[in-house]
Amino acid sequence: MTTWQTTLTFDTPRRGTYAITREVEDALRHSGVTTGLCHLFIQHTSASLIITENADPSVRRDIEYWLQQHVLDGDPNYAHNYEGDDDMSGHIRTLLTETSLTVPIKGGRLALGTWQGIFIYEHRRGRFQRHIVMTVQGQ
Amino acid sequence: MTTWQTTLTFDTPRRGTYAITREVEDALRHSGVTTGLCHLFIQHTSASLIITENADPSVRRDIEYWLQQHVLDGDPNYAHNYEGDDDMSGHIRTLLTETSLTVPIKGGRLALGTWQGIFIYEHRRGRFQRHIVMTVQGQ
Amino acid sequence: MTTWQTTLTFDTPRRGTYAITREVEDALRHSGVTTGLCHLFIQHTSASLIITENADPSVRRDIEYWLQQHVLDGDPNYAHNYEGDDDMSGHIRTLLTETSLTVPIKGGRLALGTWQGIFIYEHRRGRFQRHIVMTVQGQ
Repeated sequence: MTTWQTTLTFDTPRRGTYAITREVEDALRHSGVTTGLCHLFIQHTSASLIITENADPSVRRDIEYWLQQHVLDGDPNYAHNYEGDDDMSGHIRTLLTETSLTVPIKGGRLALGTWQGIFIYEHRRGRFQRHIVMTVQGQ
Repeated sequence: MTTWQTTLTFDTPRRGTYAITREVEDALRHSGVTTGLCHLFIQHTSASLIITENADPSVRRDIEYWLQQHVLDGDPNYAHNYEGDDDMSGHIRTLLTETSLTVPIKGGRLALGTWQGIFIYEHRRGRFQRHIVMTVQGQ
Repeated sequence: MTTWQTTLTFDTPRRGTYAITREVEDALRHSGVTTGLCHLFIQHTSASLIITENADPSVRRDIEYWLQQHVLDGDPNYAHNYEGDDDMSGHIRTLLTETSLTVPIKGGRLALGTWQGIFIYEHRRGRFQRHIVMTVQGQ
């Protein structure tokens, strides 16, 4: 068994989801691991990782709708709003989704289901650069 | 250290939770690993995995009550409802719970707390067959 | 590659968040692992683990505000309330946050982002002692 590690960097020009399955698969090929686990860790507290339906983009629009309804931007009761209306809501949205994902590796590929895709979820409205530490363990 | 992998399949005849701790423990015995980690990954976007109280089933009924209150089935504002009222809510419920779980292995067994059980959470109302990739790493 | 495992115990005298990054870093040093993954698993169903902003404590106060608004303590519709108003809400809060976290290890340290801290989130109002199984895998 071996551990292989790299950092992937992505631009997230605005709030929303960004498909990264292909980039993760590409990096995975360099690891040489065929059976094991692939761990992704986003080093931020207002951007997160999700696995959801990869086919119909309206799924991700409906998720955004639900989050806007349930995690108010600029709730006047928030104390932490130094960077704007999307500051505190970004932290709560991150909490409700994932800071890290672990996906099995089988036959040298991510063992995702047919309809599963991996996405960065940028919760801030501005332009950011987000770093993901990818760690692969297996044989 | 070694990596051991299998796929577990479960029938989920209706919306609700299904205890799978025993099935995971059974599979774990075949891995031969006594110290390490057990990773479970459900290959679907409208069924998920949870760890919650294993004793009183009313806990899981109250969780279902909370989800029904907060993630509306058939919200008319959802765009994605091709498969019915439980389509989009199933994706959001999956997002709020877990697509994968990692549980420590100690002395050849899952190191769960006394009150912790592992459950599949089927969010769709119809009958499905759900696949979980189980990956064990350790020594 | 090696697997190293220990159990960390923390007192949580009241509902709220408790920073544990330093304690995890201290234990990590004993593992001897410099590249790999650090897994934390809390063996309880009404206390959880979160990664969020480590600098301004108002972030965690706003998270508590949001949870109190959205996961009612003592909702009269809950069936499971044997241990008080914070019993069932504690289980739901645990579900919405994390029972386990996995953090990459790089250069012998947790590869957290600048603003990320690890916290126990005690959801009950009484005094508890909480156990976390820490498993480190790597080289």
